[in-house]
Amino acid sequence: MPTAKAEQAARTRQKVLLAAAEVFDETGYEKASVSQIVQRAGLTLGALYFHFGSKQGLAEALMNAQPTTIEPHLTSTGLQRLVDITLVWADRMKRDPVLRAGVRLATEQGSHGMNDATSFEDWRKLMRGHLDVARSSGEIRDGVDTDQLARFVVGACTGMQLYSHLATRRADLMERVCDMWDLLLPSVASPAVLQAIHVGPTRVPAR
Amino acid sequence: MPTAKAEQAARTRQKVLLAAAEVFDETGYEKASVSQIVQRAGLTLGALYFHFGSKQGLAEALMNAQPTTIEPHLTSTGLQRLVDITLVWADRMKRDPVLRAGVRLATEQGSHGMNDATSFEDWRKLMRGHLDVARSSGEIRDGVDTDQLARFVVGACTGMQLYSHLATRRADLMERVCDMWDLLLPSVASPAVLQAIHVGPTRVPAR
Repeated sequence: MPTAKAEQAARTRQKVLLAAAEVFDETGYEKASVSQIVQRAGLTLGALYFHFGSKQGLAEALMNAQPTTIEPHLTSTGLQRLVDITLVWADRMKRDPVLRAGVRLATEQGSHGMNDATSFEDWRKLMRGHLDVARSSGEIRDGVDTDQLARFVVGACTGMQLYSHLATRRADLMERVCDMWDLLLPSVASPAVLQAIHVGPTRVPAR
Repeated sequence: MPTAKAEQAARTRQKVLLAAAEVFDETGYEKASVSQIVQRAGLTLGALYFHFGSKQGLAEALMNAQPTTIEPHLTSTGLQRLVDITLVWADRMKRDPVLRAGVRLATEQGSHGMNDATSFEDWRKLMRGHLDVARSSGEIRDGVDTDQLARFVVGACTGMQLYSHLATRRADLMERVCDMWDLLLPSVASPAVLQAIHVGPTRVPAR
């Protein structure tokens, strides 16, 4: 059972993370300042450094927090769950600052001297796990490599997001994710499952 | 017929562009300085400002120069040409600084306050043109929207490049592009054409 002190520390950590997400999402890594972040969180610089060590430590925590903002919303399994993850992600990108900051930081990290594929690899492993469940249930066509497919979906979602952000400020991101599945599913889903998979914004659970 | 003066101006422009590509590719937009660029080009600041107006003007020219570094290498048509464009792109990303800088600048532009989808839209239109040729030759399955497919390929290539760069410094980019076609072609190529399309590094013309 967590002590009152541990609960307080977890709340403080979360406050810093949320304030940092908002600032990074709005201004990008370079222009964000730690003093601006602690001011928004209503905390001290000490709290930020205690929990995250540095501005870069905060950025890493945000990049790697992405899956935890998606998975709790879902109950489906196998291939449908993989589809649902990408649909909920497209929906949450509209308004979840932790997710938006994580994606922005991961995409632009080269410009501030970082070179960390961890968030991409975490997504790939998570997706691959669901695809392996799908394979064992006979949902995946013979010849499709689940690791290759998981890696492709991670890369494709990253690039679609970037393009959608530049072209429409992400207004068409959900539509683009649906396009991806329209194009991929006939190649990867076994014929029996293809008709049963649902793709569309109605798959996103109400908040 | 271009005058000697016009030829000289074109050569100067090209020198500035190449030097800028090398510097942007190595250091990113923020850290690159115009004085470093003109020093590498062996030219004056005046030449840079005359041809490109500003550092941002240079970045825009590089982002939008991408297709011109790929298309001259190709003679194929239709769906095979679309495949070939992506394979030559994966190969040239290893060593063409103009292409590398263009992709890096387009990807990281948010971090330096730019928001320009032009390079993405240019690629989409170019790819869509080849897909429309493929459609009129009966190479594309019924129900596949060529604009949707072109847009998806642009987004997917962008994201695969970013992931490959972070995970392997682009050592596996060619393999990732081949994965994409393995996954997409069964859905988009008409059955008669599917067996005839070649995917692999052997499609890249020798220099």
